[in-house]
Amino acid sequence: MRVGVLTGGGDCPGLNAVIRSVVRKGVQEYGFDFVGLRDGWLGALRGHVVPLDVASVRGILPRGGTVLGSSRTNPFKHDDGPRRIEDTLAAHGIDALVVIGGEDTLGAAGELSRRGLRLVGVPKTIDNDVAGTDYTFGFDTAVGIATEAIDRLHTTAESHMRALVVEVMGRHSGWIALHAGVAGGANVILVPERPFDIEQVCAWVQSRFRFNYAPIVVVAEGAVPKEGQMVLKDRSRDEYGHVRLSGIGEWLALEIARRTGKDARTTVLGYIQRGGSPSAFDRWLATRFGLHAVDAVKDGDFGTMTALRGTQIVRVPLPDAHTGTKVVDDSLYDEFEVFFG
Amino acid sequence: MRVGVLTGGGDCPGLNAVIRSVVRKGVQEYGFDFVGLRDGWLGALRGHVVPLDVASVRGILPRGGTVLGSSRTNPFKHDDGPRRIEDTLAAHGIDALVVIGGEDTLGAAGELSRRGLRLVGVPKTIDNDVAGTDYTFGFDTAVGIATEAIDRLHTTAESHMRALVVEVMGRHSGWIALHAGVAGGANVILVPERPFDIEQVCAWVQSRFRFNYAPIVVVAEGAVPKEGQMVLKDRSRDEYGHVRLSGIGEWLALEIARRTGKDARTTVLGYIQRGGSPSAFDRWLATRFGLHAVDAVKDGDFGTMTALRGTQIVRVPLPDAHTGTKVVDDSLYDEFEVFFG
Amino acid sequence: MRVGVLTGGGDCPGLNAVIRSVVRKGVQEYGFDFVGLRDGWLGALRGHVVPLDVASVRGILPRGGTVLGSSRTNPFKHDDGPRRIEDTLAAHGIDALVVIGGEDTLGAAGELSRRGLRLVGVPKTIDNDVAGTDYTFGFDTAVGIATEAIDRLHTTAESHMRALVVEVMGRHSGWIALHAGVAGGANVILVPERPFDIEQVCAWVQSRFRFNYAPIVVVAEGAVPKEGQMVLKDRSRDEYGHVRLSGIGEWLALEIARRTGKDARTTVLGYIQRGGSPSAFDRWLATRFGLHAVDAVKDGDFGTMTALRGTQIVRVPLPDAHTGTKVVDDSLYDEFEVFFG
Amino acid sequence: MRVGVLTGGGDCPGLNAVIRSVVRKGVQEYGFDFVGLRDGWLGALRGHVVPLDVASVRGILPRGGTVLGSSRTNPFKHDDGPRRIEDTLAAHGIDALVVIGGEDTLGAAGELSRRGLRLVGVPKTIDNDVAGTDYTFGFDTAVGIATEAIDRLHTTAESHMRALVVEVMGRHSGWIALHAGVAGGANVILVPERPFDIEQVCAWVQSRFRFNYAPIVVVAEGAVPKEGQMVLKDRSRDEYGHVRLSGIGEWLALEIARRTGKDARTTVLGYIQRGGSPSAFDRWLATRFGLHAVDAVKDGDFGTMTALRGTQIVRVPLPDAHTGTKVVDDSLYDEFEVFFG
Repeated sequence: MRVGVLTGGGDCPGLNAVIRSVVRKGVQEYGFDFVGLRDGWLGALRGHVVPLDVASVRGILPRGGTVLGSSRTNPFKHDDGPRRIEDTLAAHGIDALVVIGGEDTLGAAGELSRRGLRLVGVPKTIDNDVAGTDYTFGFDTAVGIATEAIDRLHTTAESHMRALVVEVMGRHSGWIALHAGVAGGANVILVPERPFDIEQVCAWVQSRFRFNYAPIVVVAEGAVPKEGQMVLKDRSRDEYGHVRLSGIGEWLALEIARRTGKDARTTVLGYIQRGGSPSAFDRWLATRFGLHAVDAVKDGDFGTMTALRGTQIVRVPLPDAHTGTKVVDDSLYDEFEVFFG
Repeated sequence: MRVGVLTGGGDCPGLNAVIRSVVRKGVQEYGFDFVGLRDGWLGALRGHVVPLDVASVRGILPRGGTVLGSSRTNPFKHDDGPRRIEDTLAAHGIDALVVIGGEDTLGAAGELSRRGLRLVGVPKTIDNDVAGTDYTFGFDTAVGIATEAIDRLHTTAESHMRALVVEVMGRHSGWIALHAGVAGGANVILVPERPFDIEQVCAWVQSRFRFNYAPIVVVAEGAVPKEGQMVLKDRSRDEYGHVRLSGIGEWLALEIARRTGKDARTTVLGYIQRGGSPSAFDRWLATRFGLHAVDAVKDGDFGTMTALRGTQIVRVPLPDAHTGTKVVDDSLYDEFEVFFG
Repeated sequence: MRVGVLTGGGDCPGLNAVIRSVVRKGVQEYGFDFVGLRDGWLGALRGHVVPLDVASVRGILPRGGTVLGSSRTNPFKHDDGPRRIEDTLAAHGIDALVVIGGEDTLGAAGELSRRGLRLVGVPKTIDNDVAGTDYTFGFDTAVGIATEAIDRLHTTAESHMRALVVEVMGRHSGWIALHAGVAGGANVILVPERPFDIEQVCAWVQSRFRFNYAPIVVVAEGAVPKEGQMVLKDRSRDEYGHVRLSGIGEWLALEIARRTGKDARTTVLGYIQRGGSPSAFDRWLATRFGLHAVDAVKDGDFGTMTALRGTQIVRVPLPDAHTGTKVVDDSLYDEFEVFFG
Repeated sequence: MRVGVLTGGGDCPGLNAVIRSVVRKGVQEYGFDFVGLRDGWLGALRGHVVPLDVASVRGILPRGGTVLGSSRTNPFKHDDGPRRIEDTLAAHGIDALVVIGGEDTLGAAGELSRRGLRLVGVPKTIDNDVAGTDYTFGFDTAVGIATEAIDRLHTTAESHMRALVVEVMGRHSGWIALHAGVAGGANVILVPERPFDIEQVCAWVQSRFRFNYAPIVVVAEGAVPKEGQMVLKDRSRDEYGHVRLSGIGEWLALEIARRTGKDARTTVLGYIQRGGSPSAFDRWLATRFGLHAVDAVKDGDFGTMTALRGTQIVRVPLPDAHTGTKVVDDSLYDEFEVFFG
């Protein structure tokens, strides 16, 4: 049996760990043969296929990124995409695919599976917003990096009695913000799931200053204030007096400074959250996902993806159009409100 | 309501995070009053009680160890232990106790609870062997430290083409060895749950050398060879001439060197696995355990301890004499055998 | 003898280590008495004086920031500043000051010293641009953080075959950019001392892509392109079409993308470079600076500051109006050009 | 010109960084051709020569260990060693050698140079004991790892009010012990250069306990007590009943416990001090050493080695029989005595 492997979407610590365990178990236990498709669905569309064997996965477990490359290509946005993928599989004698990716990549995999392709999915995203699994790998690493950054910012904030805003990743979900904010001892945590009241934020900030502590505000990049609170005049102006919309972190710092009269600054963590060596937790999870994905291929259990439930790895259906993203629910968020302010 | 808090057993990253969240929520949400009992059950026996308020838990979230001190004192091994504890609680007007500890500490809590004391438990142990919870805090930090050490040892092993044995904590269970071994890409992982065959270990070591890679053997301190494989002449003698069993890591290196003719060395990680700042995962888990423990006190749900099930915190009964430790089962261990050798 | 201690300017890992060693040696060896002046020169102007003894410096060695607070207050920009400082010293019976700060703080110290105040300086700055000393503490920590970030960004760059620009601190000098860029294996390093040619930068970027590697560009926040290269049309426009000037990192990414047709993104490291626990090197240097500063006070060697020369700590005069900052000279920068492109 | 490169002695973070910069500059700037000699002098004796070009050094900068392998082989202890090395060089057309190693490796290089071989040396050792250079690469990484371990041990020590002994590397010199001990806030630091008085050590330990702090004792593996203090009954026996001296760390913990009545434990850091990714400082130093070493080859300046003096890289003669190791002198050690006890 020849199995193709591809990694799609944004890069994520642990992708290489999955590739390695898929190949190690597939070759050593089941006698499978493997090839890689370069740069996610792009390689599947273009027939960019590379050799993949035990030697080529040696030493990649602790390395971030993906040795197969990645892209955000969606095969359904290309003319005749699904047929071109079938052609690639046929041309290279590929019997089944292991598809490692986030919502978009897995959504395409789900659609292709319903059209008859033999696919098994492995969910990845640093955002942790894939439904059906307790956690995705990459998330723990991102939370660790953000927490370490918050630890560092505390000392700067305290030394200058200044409010510090930390903008972390999370366009549609606040998992990184919530976990890193709780772990880092933030005084305010703002997530996309819950539009915030800037007046409440400033009240928390001021209460912190009143007790002679410097506040840390952790905000997901996709968080937004309540309707009507971000108005044109809130936008900053450049040196020519032209308005510009800043990222939410920058807006928050300006607004906190304006409303409380305190010094406030922003740090945008950006790409350092998704790169580098995966944490031990993510290596463990990614390795197990890979082992179980190749088992699903062996069992012919296509159209499924691996998922974590408690300490068990299970198989669940690949996402379809009705599968939403996994968001932070109110009861979890409310658990931590005691730390705000 | 006045609530006492104590931490027992070996120190563990995250203890301070629990203390902080218990006190923060108890005071701010429920209007409780807190005191600390110093050094685990010892303080409860001796009436060593200290003030504990919101100010005293500021800034302790990222700090390892426990601000309340700890000990391995078992109140049932002291004359009249339970009565002395009741006296302490009465003398200081303590209505309920939050007991943070491992198996032994929680076992005593369970027994005291059955005698009528109002207790809520929080499980901790870097060994992850408390039954009833998916994970305990401290474990993720320990695994992270051990994994980083294994990462480092790979480069030394490869540079000198030498077998390196890493002895990690785990007297009765192999959780740290298994997780860190998998995350660190070890070639052999030995756990107390499964007596090992030294000949098999040496075969794995040699197969690794044959492919020009240097083997890493991760061994839990409590792992043992199959019956008959460790004989008297392997043991060293202490300063009085009495035989003593060398640590299993040291024995393994000697034995591997003797049987394979290859250079082999040992590193015993020791106490660095249990100290220092907790990982983000452990701070999250410890903080949630604390919040839920104080909720249980509020609800009068005594005799329970907090536990992690998937992503939820639940309450389970405190352990009793019939509760065993949580061990690595064969099916999980076997998942990873493809990486051995 | 009563000695005052103050920390001025931006916070910097190692400030607490200096405070601790000044106090430990001053009290234990010389029998001095200490007080702290809060928030740099501000506390000296306002008479904000706090107790400082051996107990208050326990445990602060590994902690970032400064327990004395800091500010950018310049006493010479306040009415009658020098006289108010003298009044504070007289009112609290302070015989001498240990002043820990960067160029501005030490420049003021130099001027006050020439007016007769008994001062000893300790240079600090993460930027490493204080003349007269090989290194300042805080710099090694900042370089370490930036290097770790660059390590992480490599994997994201490679996975997506994308140019990544990393903007690091350094308004007037490129020390952090140069050290972190060399240590992180950057392909282009841009420093304020040397205006860069954007065409050369793009040529380097493209040569890297040609060999199938993803380029990392490290740029100090104060680096600028050659005259005429940054023109109005280079400025980005916001969603309303208004121009805005971006930071140099953002400008570079836009320009590289425009000129090479490749994807390019920016990460601005910001405040995480100056916070958190100091590196071992910085703790060593800061501790020694403190020990030698208090020796200088004991010797009555006022008007000097501690400096590192090789492995020795020496005393040099406090900076005056003629002392420039220490910049990266051409011959050092040129050493590394072999790695560009 | 064809240049051979070899790495000898114990592995050390930064070896790969040297190899990379030697090759990058040699090829790109000077048009040299390179080969590697495997496993230090062993490859030179046996003619084990491997290709070495720009492609083979890509990506190795942040990796610990050495891609060329290493050994402790001394060519002067092999029959006809020097002539066999000359034969290897002649057979492979090697015009000059870059030899990266510690005292032993460089001592052999010095001797071979005096016999007419064209050699340039680069000093490496985590122990920092090579004379003629302010620092060697690898040392900063080792000190950082040891300091982080000491940071972790503080929390365990405090939680259990226990003395913790940390044994670090350093057979003949106490550089790691001194730097890590100072940076980690140790209460006692013991180095090989200065035989210690066990009674003084116990007095320091007890004074620390008196102030309710838990003592950390950092000891270099080569430190020894004053004559007469370690007697036969302190030694343990090996498996054949022969006495053996336990490691100094273990002896110290036993002795402290016996003499003070306090609980005392030991952690031996071992090999984790020499493995893994080099620190930013070590990557900077190793990279510069490589660049300057290849310049020396270009200049025909054989018989020299690179050395750090302040912030400059200079050339000094290769060590000979009269060159001693660089040790911690009394005045430096005495600087820190104020922190003891």
